[in-house]
Amino acid sequence: MPKASLAPRYQPVDALNAPRYTGVRTFARCPAVRATEGVGLAAVGVPFDTGTSYRAGARFGPEAIRSASTLLRPWHPQLEVDVFAQSVVDWGDLAIVPGNARRTVAQIAEGLAPLLDAGVTPLVMGGDHSILLGELRAHAAVDGPVGLVLLDAHADTWDHYYGEQLFHGTPLRRAVEEGVLDPTRSVIAGLRGPLYDAADVDAPREMGFTVVEGDALLALAPQQFGDLVQNVIRDGRTMFSFDVDVLDPAFAPGTGTPEIGGLTPHAVQRYLRALAGIDFIGFDVVEVSPPYDTPGQTTALVAAGIAHELLALSAVARGQRSSQPTRSAHANP
Amino acid sequence: MPKASLAPRYQPVDALNAPRYTGVRTFARCPAVRATEGVGLAAVGVPFDTGTSYRAGARFGPEAIRSASTLLRPWHPQLEVDVFAQSVVDWGDLAIVPGNARRTVAQIAEGLAPLLDAGVTPLVMGGDHSILLGELRAHAAVDGPVGLVLLDAHADTWDHYYGEQLFHGTPLRRAVEEGVLDPTRSVIAGLRGPLYDAADVDAPREMGFTVVEGDALLALAPQQFGDLVQNVIRDGRTMFSFDVDVLDPAFAPGTGTPEIGGLTPHAVQRYLRALAGIDFIGFDVVEVSPPYDTPGQTTALVAAGIAHELLALSAVARGQRSSQPTRSAHANP
Amino acid sequence: MPKASLAPRYQPVDALNAPRYTGVRTFARCPAVRATEGVGLAAVGVPFDTGTSYRAGARFGPEAIRSASTLLRPWHPQLEVDVFAQSVVDWGDLAIVPGNARRTVAQIAEGLAPLLDAGVTPLVMGGDHSILLGELRAHAAVDGPVGLVLLDAHADTWDHYYGEQLFHGTPLRRAVEEGVLDPTRSVIAGLRGPLYDAADVDAPREMGFTVVEGDALLALAPQQFGDLVQNVIRDGRTMFSFDVDVLDPAFAPGTGTPEIGGLTPHAVQRYLRALAGIDFIGFDVVEVSPPYDTPGQTTALVAAGIAHELLALSAVARGQRSSQPTRSAHANP
Amino acid sequence: MPKASLAPRYQPVDALNAPRYTGVRTFARCPAVRATEGVGLAAVGVPFDTGTSYRAGARFGPEAIRSASTLLRPWHPQLEVDVFAQSVVDWGDLAIVPGNARRTVAQIAEGLAPLLDAGVTPLVMGGDHSILLGELRAHAAVDGPVGLVLLDAHADTWDHYYGEQLFHGTPLRRAVEEGVLDPTRSVIAGLRGPLYDAADVDAPREMGFTVVEGDALLALAPQQFGDLVQNVIRDGRTMFSFDVDVLDPAFAPGTGTPEIGGLTPHAVQRYLRALAGIDFIGFDVVEVSPPYDTPGQTTALVAAGIAHELLALSAVARGQRSSQPTRSAHANP
Amino acid sequence: MPKASLAPRYQPVDALNAPRYTGVRTFARCPAVRATEGVGLAAVGVPFDTGTSYRAGARFGPEAIRSASTLLRPWHPQLEVDVFAQSVVDWGDLAIVPGNARRTVAQIAEGLAPLLDAGVTPLVMGGDHSILLGELRAHAAVDGPVGLVLLDAHADTWDHYYGEQLFHGTPLRRAVEEGVLDPTRSVIAGLRGPLYDAADVDAPREMGFTVVEGDALLALAPQQFGDLVQNVIRDGRTMFSFDVDVLDPAFAPGTGTPEIGGLTPHAVQRYLRALAGIDFIGFDVVEVSPPYDTPGQTTALVAAGIAHELLALSAVARGQRSSQPTRSAHANP
Amino acid sequence: MPKASLAPRYQPVDALNAPRYTGVRTFARCPAVRATEGVGLAAVGVPFDTGTSYRAGARFGPEAIRSASTLLRPWHPQLEVDVFAQSVVDWGDLAIVPGNARRTVAQIAEGLAPLLDAGVTPLVMGGDHSILLGELRAHAAVDGPVGLVLLDAHADTWDHYYGEQLFHGTPLRRAVEEGVLDPTRSVIAGLRGPLYDAADVDAPREMGFTVVEGDALLALAPQQFGDLVQNVIRDGRTMFSFDVDVLDPAFAPGTGTPEIGGLTPHAVQRYLRALAGIDFIGFDVVEVSPPYDTPGQTTALVAAGIAHELLALSAVARGQRSSQPTRSAHANP
Repeated sequence: MPKASLAPRYQPVDALNAPRYTGVRTFARCPAVRATEGVGLAAVGVPFDTGTSYRAGARFGPEAIRSASTLLRPWHPQLEVDVFAQSVVDWGDLAIVPGNARRTVAQIAEGLAPLLDAGVTPLVMGGDHSILLGELRAHAAVDGPVGLVLLDAHADTWDHYYGEQLFHGTPLRRAVEEGVLDPTRSVIAGLRGPLYDAADVDAPREMGFTVVEGDALLALAPQQFGDLVQNVIRDGRTMFSFDVDVLDPAFAPGTGTPEIGGLTPHAVQRYLRALAGIDFIGFDVVEVSPPYDTPGQTTALVAAGIAHELLALSAVARGQRSSQPTRSAHANP
Repeated sequence: MPKASLAPRYQPVDALNAPRYTGVRTFARCPAVRATEGVGLAAVGVPFDTGTSYRAGARFGPEAIRSASTLLRPWHPQLEVDVFAQSVVDWGDLAIVPGNARRTVAQIAEGLAPLLDAGVTPLVMGGDHSILLGELRAHAAVDGPVGLVLLDAHADTWDHYYGEQLFHGTPLRRAVEEGVLDPTRSVIAGLRGPLYDAADVDAPREMGFTVVEGDALLALAPQQFGDLVQNVIRDGRTMFSFDVDVLDPAFAPGTGTPEIGGLTPHAVQRYLRALAGIDFIGFDVVEVSPPYDTPGQTTALVAAGIAHELLALSAVARGQRSSQPTRSAHANP
Repeated sequence: MPKASLAPRYQPVDALNAPRYTGVRTFARCPAVRATEGVGLAAVGVPFDTGTSYRAGARFGPEAIRSASTLLRPWHPQLEVDVFAQSVVDWGDLAIVPGNARRTVAQIAEGLAPLLDAGVTPLVMGGDHSILLGELRAHAAVDGPVGLVLLDAHADTWDHYYGEQLFHGTPLRRAVEEGVLDPTRSVIAGLRGPLYDAADVDAPREMGFTVVEGDALLALAPQQFGDLVQNVIRDGRTMFSFDVDVLDPAFAPGTGTPEIGGLTPHAVQRYLRALAGIDFIGFDVVEVSPPYDTPGQTTALVAAGIAHELLALSAVARGQRSSQPTRSAHANP
Repeated sequence: MPKASLAPRYQPVDALNAPRYTGVRTFARCPAVRATEGVGLAAVGVPFDTGTSYRAGARFGPEAIRSASTLLRPWHPQLEVDVFAQSVVDWGDLAIVPGNARRTVAQIAEGLAPLLDAGVTPLVMGGDHSILLGELRAHAAVDGPVGLVLLDAHADTWDHYYGEQLFHGTPLRRAVEEGVLDPTRSVIAGLRGPLYDAADVDAPREMGFTVVEGDALLALAPQQFGDLVQNVIRDGRTMFSFDVDVLDPAFAPGTGTPEIGGLTPHAVQRYLRALAGIDFIGFDVVEVSPPYDTPGQTTALVAAGIAHELLALSAVARGQRSSQPTRSAHANP
Repeated sequence: MPKASLAPRYQPVDALNAPRYTGVRTFARCPAVRATEGVGLAAVGVPFDTGTSYRAGARFGPEAIRSASTLLRPWHPQLEVDVFAQSVVDWGDLAIVPGNARRTVAQIAEGLAPLLDAGVTPLVMGGDHSILLGELRAHAAVDGPVGLVLLDAHADTWDHYYGEQLFHGTPLRRAVEEGVLDPTRSVIAGLRGPLYDAADVDAPREMGFTVVEGDALLALAPQQFGDLVQNVIRDGRTMFSFDVDVLDPAFAPGTGTPEIGGLTPHAVQRYLRALAGIDFIGFDVVEVSPPYDTPGQTTALVAAGIAHELLALSAVARGQRSSQPTRSAHANP
Repeated sequence: MPKASLAPRYQPVDALNAPRYTGVRTFARCPAVRATEGVGLAAVGVPFDTGTSYRAGARFGPEAIRSASTLLRPWHPQLEVDVFAQSVVDWGDLAIVPGNARRTVAQIAEGLAPLLDAGVTPLVMGGDHSILLGELRAHAAVDGPVGLVLLDAHADTWDHYYGEQLFHGTPLRRAVEEGVLDPTRSVIAGLRGPLYDAADVDAPREMGFTVVEGDALLALAPQQFGDLVQNVIRDGRTMFSFDVDVLDPAFAPGTGTPEIGGLTPHAVQRYLRALAGIDFIGFDVVEVSPPYDTPGQTTALVAAGIAHELLALSAVARGQRSSQPTRSAHANP
């Protein structure tokens, strides 16, 4: 981790001097920087939606999240942390190839490598969920298969669609097959909606995932969810992925495959805050499809707000790390 | 009931081969069929909105529900049933006369008759709620007045508007007057919002309906609601009607007379699942007004999702019937 | 208070004769009247949005609330009161100067004076929240500093923005400085979202306000909230202010500074009904920004619905006053 | 005609003192008045859309036109006339019965009578085009069948739809049958789009109308159009009707039955200005359907702008009348 | 060509009996038929948008065109032809593979073959423009390379994007390379907008195409354009392709790569009518992207309206063929 | 002017490698740079809308123009110039104070000074038109009062609104009063719409401006307009300002004070291209109000497209300057 005394520390523009609607739209008004020196966390766009099976448009997700993130302020009152104290930049977008998921997933893995090598935590802004495979590859390249905590309406463990193997419904299966994801240290929570087959209910469990369906999740108090996650991921390297379709379409209408009966953002916030203390190696917020959003950009706002929670989780963990100098999960495992 | 071995069994197009956004929009991608042989349930459009007292547009409700229903998958994980196993078709739209509720209601009753005669369960896609009178006439023509379970923000028991007797606020009163609806075997649940007069609170109860206001409904656990319904409808022939305005406008903005403070889709799903085992003789989902919907079609999505729950109720009941061959509610009451 | 037998009593147009979508849009279809004789409550528009720090558009808030309020009916079933029995008019809009908050706030105070002098309760339709300063000045001019009950996502106790002292984030601080608002008799409830600094959490409390953050509010039963409010405001003159951003953006997307994770309208309704019996001296509903609303006008609908709850609070209090002739808070303090 | 010296003269609120977005929305910010003394022209809403054959929503047309008309200023630079000098009021909406075109048309005729009796020129804001029959009846009741100048994409001379005789495609045929419209003194201009049958091309001509199809209209210079109209209507009493669907859907998307390939507003303005000097006995602007309009209210804006042109035609004619005291077309024909 | 006396003749539902907003949405309300007997023209959906380089969403183009096409009536007054007299069906959508342009283009060629073999004229509803390659392959498979008349803002003759060879900017180059398109018998008209390089201006001409830039096109009278086209395509087999982005974004905002300064629909109609008499072997209307369309579906309406013009061109040509029995271009070349 | 051989030359990201929807949104994907070395033209945002008299929202104009400008390509085929050859950067936004036009105008003048001092041409993205005063002050500070070519529906020569002197209707009068604008070397073209008073027609002419009303403009061939402009501005330093409301609302609905009957973008393009050769000292595109834009961002697209034309005018003039080394208008006047 860089020494703060010498390295630059990146912060948002001060909103008390320049209104939040001013300036080129970078994530949370943090500097657009392609350097890792002094950077704690980097927001990274992956504007790719070739993997969607229903509505497209997530290629404009990073733009929309950046736009809505201008409303974010530094202090997280519940976790009592300045989310930007960890030094946050906007890395820009990774190279992608529209129409070619295979090449794109490889580019994502390649694009994230310099960040991970430098100990920078990536917060990926999607893009459809197929990009998760690239993220997992990048993280696994550091030190082997990783765990995953996923909030999602869908298990994304399908084998293929229409004969294609890389779609937003298949990344978890591919990742397990490739050995970059350890299902036994992974939690999939929030599943709901009709399925193609009775077997679909069991498939992710049979692959080794811990599954918490939507109704079961709502029956858990936040702390119970936090304990469950901790028990599954144990002390290994773990990534966090947030698919906005875990929310009810009233809160996140701008998404590729909406399912009714979802969570509220407030419930999600409470579950996420119960994860404080876990040192995730990376994050993403995916499946924001702006052309289907409301005129008030409800979906982008909620994605930015969830990103704020994830920043806070990272800030809390970094704070713990800096006070526990002997441990740095992904650098010296 | 048709013998499955000889009759066709109608199913949706396989979404694993053809993406769900392909093909002419029929309900849930089931075949467009005007035949009753081998059909268990038929989705039927009634694109009529002359009966609206505020916002029009529900004439495009069937189109929107069909469009959103392409996302529905067969398996209902909570009720553990393949909702299309009962053989489902899209019957198309019934004939209607815009600007003339009286003629249209008669057409609806006439149009549903062949389905009911053949033992096909209709799932009507509205259209404003005035069409319910036509549905009830059709069902009563089979074997006398029927019971009704209604989820709605409004009681729809007004006497008239502006001197007109057929409006979306009057079908229940007309149906009771005509003797096609038995209020003593009917439940109206979810009422809320300001009223014209203190007397409006009591009117439906004085007509004999069992009324569960919104707050009272939320105080019930799903199973309690299920028991209440079962106690009221007893073992008689009963129809189910769903007005999307029972939901909060955040979830169903595209409707004719929105009222704030409504239910969530998730709460509705849980109440509906508590009705599993009841063998309804018909269903409807009404008051979807697409021009007031969000760009992401929130209202149509929720209407389609509720239709999926209703399909599941029908599938469960049919499953019970086929395993209890001596009973077929509407054929041999 | 005017004698009902001689004075006119203003009521909405009868919706059973003229559909609610007919006529010039006045608040709740009540008469547009610039006279105080016989008037109990006056809806007053303040179409001003120069004070917004993010999204503008609230200048069209009064138009949108008037439009949506045509759906309101007289009878409030939970509080069992005819909300229009108190004689309600639409006063039109106050004079404002776009681009000049200082002059506008003075105009608001001046514009409300004749209403307060005549014992008419104002229900102000905003406009951004900077207008609250004008309202508080008007109320304080009658008989000294007043208490305030505020539902809002933000404390609005900032000192300045970009060097400007009158913004929608500063009215409470200005009002306390000017001595028109008594923070020790004021409750701010519903705060949430990220802040600029850890100190922001404590600032309003240090100014003397009773603060109930969002999560704390949700932990209160409605009656508990009612008791808390009563304990703080005691029996002094108190105003009620409702910022629609206290609601989650799914319910109120059309607002200037949305924050995710907010209240539902149903929760707000239950909290408001727990205030029945308190004789507020004035009300407002602010921060409705129509250009960011949904096609179905979700935000305007909820603002109108909340206005209905406020009308009911006023009607209950007036009913109590008329049966307790010895007490009329703002006429004979 | 009222004596200006004694009667009130109604004018819009001064926009230099109160911004145009302030105040209750009346037509062009003119007073809401139900009196004829001193009134030259009255804007009258007819919020009726039961007669639409495709998209509904025109019941909200008057609200939308009123909203957009707040942008109108007094001076018409091309015709060099103050359009409000004739004393203009907003009469409010006429009584209508949704779902019953027959009763509504009668109400329209009845509702306009007091205006015509008092020499007030009505400018009707629709509503769908079926309301024209009511207008023509009212005008004919004064002094026999009238002429008509109609700009419309459709001839509206159908006999019936679905067995119903009063629809927005039939008013001209009904009016001729009833003897309230003289087709030989009527011009229908702007027709375009596919038809049901080759015979449809000739039908209006066979009824006696002068027809100018869209392409033929565009081939006319404005003055040629003015001459053509003058030649047809001669010096008899004549009404003007404007259906916004004569415009291309890019300019007027919010309408019931759009047809591509229409006129531009600028072309219409030039044709209308060529009619200056004709003393029309009444005007309407119909088929504005707000739920299908753009977020910027393109259609309502253009309807209000055309209304401004019609006000100007009226103002020019009134100016001529007042300088030619021996002639007052509809009072002393 | 089928013998009309024996074969079925497919027509739309009669709109005078069933309103045009009723029924399952098939193209122009024609029957959904997967048979060629008795069919003259088949509307075929290709819901594919993997080839878009900017905005996606054209996968929902066929649904939107079908929806808007319900407004089409049979008679084309300018060309004096019943466009459905040739017997028209909706063939449904071709199989496609989202995310794989290569496989999809092959599927298109395969999917159109049975239509062409049976002498049915396909009218393809896109879908992004990459699908044109599949169409051209199908037509070339009948009897060698074909000519093309293309109205488009872009030449679509790029070599590749991001290393991918099948995109919506490359089909013409691929088609020429594959020998399925004869550039010397092809016209590209309507080009406009900034280019990547000066060389882009000349590239299509160097490939052999006849190019008419937007300004040059507008300088042509319709008949001049008709003559130009006739001179280029001569009497060989020629297809017609319409990219909605040739229109100005005001008329067709819902498209993948809009360019300002485009044509009006009325201008296009006049150019198309000047092609009457040419016997095109197939048609398409592409690049309709519904999520970017207006609430009034401006783009879908204009696409459906252009489809009507293309139906008319086909009807005129078929009428000529049936009166000239010795010639049937694609059956006996 | 910087020596190209040593200085950096700023160009957009290559769209053939990275799709145009990727990356942080800077103007035309040019680098975000706050340096003048090697810069020929800088796009500068001024997100200010306190000066609007009707609809607000232009504070988000720079964001929207940046977003839409990602579609721009380098080569302008009609003027045959690479618009980025002059080295183009995105300067970001100038400091502004919402709610205070006076302070903001001063900030604009101050913010532009370093660009002008370094010989960089500013292309300002508004913001409402009140910002023009700041621009003119900056330009006048270099070498005295400047000329102006303005395309606008309104003359913006009002004296005040509601007692405020800085509004978007007053900048030209203020600028003349301040001596920063020379009306005798200025052209205002495209005026239309109703006015407050007959005197408004003459006011700008009386101030010395050359005025070309909308109809008069359309009567000019592009070259005639070019000659007219050249004759008025002669060889003095002149700025160009483009208010999107000069366009018809169908093309630019997202603006503060729309007027029907406006220009088409294509007409504007032709008029602008006729100005090629004039060496303007600065440009702006103002009054883009995104919340009133269409879902397809029609207004932002046209604003970006017009910006492309202005880039081309600058590029042509710079090309001439570099080949005519003896003349550099604003450096050595």
